[in-house]
Amino acid sequence: MTHKGFTLWFTGLSGAGKSTVSEIIEKRLREDGARVELLDGDVIRTNLSKGLGFSKEDRDTNIRRIGFVCEMLSRNGVVAIAAAISPYREVRDEVAAKIEHFVEVHAHCPLATLVDRDVKGLYKKALAGEIKEFTGVSDPYEPPLHPAVKFDSSVETPQESAEKVWVKLVELRLIAPDD
Amino acid sequence: MTHKGFTLWFTGLSGAGKSTVSEIIEKRLREDGARVELLDGDVIRTNLSKGLGFSKEDRDTNIRRIGFVCEMLSRNGVVAIAAAISPYREVRDEVAAKIEHFVEVHAHCPLATLVDRDVKGLYKKALAGEIKEFTGVSDPYEPPLHPAVKFDSSVETPQESAEKVWVKLVELRLIAPDD
Repeated sequence: MTHKGFTLWFTGLSGAGKSTVSEIIEKRLREDGARVELLDGDVIRTNLSKGLGFSKEDRDTNIRRIGFVCEMLSRNGVVAIAAAISPYREVRDEVAAKIEHFVEVHAHCPLATLVDRDVKGLYKKALAGEIKEFTGVSDPYEPPLHPAVKFDSSVETPQESAEKVWVKLVELRLIAPDD
Repeated sequence: MTHKGFTLWFTGLSGAGKSTVSEIIEKRLREDGARVELLDGDVIRTNLSKGLGFSKEDRDTNIRRIGFVCEMLSRNGVVAIAAAISPYREVRDEVAAKIEHFVEVHAHCPLATLVDRDVKGLYKKALAGEIKEFTGVSDPYEPPLHPAVKFDSSVETPQESAEKVWVKLVELRLIAPDD
């Protein structure tokens, strides 16, 4: 598989499908022989964001830091996939501007559906005020204005959403069509 | 140039020659067509260590974080060069154990010479108590027990020290002898 380094950036609320869809893409890229690194919530918390909280300043520092790692990987021919809530538009755009091939994916899901699903029980706690500064409930989320891809996990399967992303990567010539 | 990804880790006191020697190596590797990233004090402070202080815990977090980035780069075929005081042996060894090809370089210089040179005026301030927790003066430095390379910048030129590092990389077959 021939490919350039690029950054695939998933943004969206907790539970909207960032990790699920990014894992499908990661697997498919790996099977095709690509060099891939997935920076999801778990990897980020363990390795990059220790000591940061949920203020806008700390969230922005976190996103810049993830962006720095993605930038270094991408410019060395690696596919960097970030799956991070990344609620603020300005810092996402700042990161995007630094990376030659940056593809923003908006993992969307209506709040009502997220509250209804509530796989981790976090929305219930956030709505009850037990978790402060919870994005989408008590903290802002600024959706991308022009994402390269937007999917809606309330009406699409993860496979369908991943296919949308894949098609876009081919269209952008970041991966070859016959992979 | 054919090369594997590896991590070249410079440890040593402020002013001992980590940055100077690592920049010579970086330049030579780049000229030979290698993919290289240099994580020196400036890059680290700007992109990775914001919010961290000089306690042992914070210093260890900083080193683990740099190590995480080096690990990701190395395993994707990139040469990651870290130039960080990294005063504590245990966390250096922890990072080393995670990276397949890890080469530790001890940038040594006797304290008396560092105080005498004092290019940035930091040792004077540290000795006067104006800077707290200054490695080598008021904070510990644990030298590596078995570094792959040790140089002494009080008796060697930077070029001589860089040559030692280069020879070791060839010996370890991380770079080809005829580069």
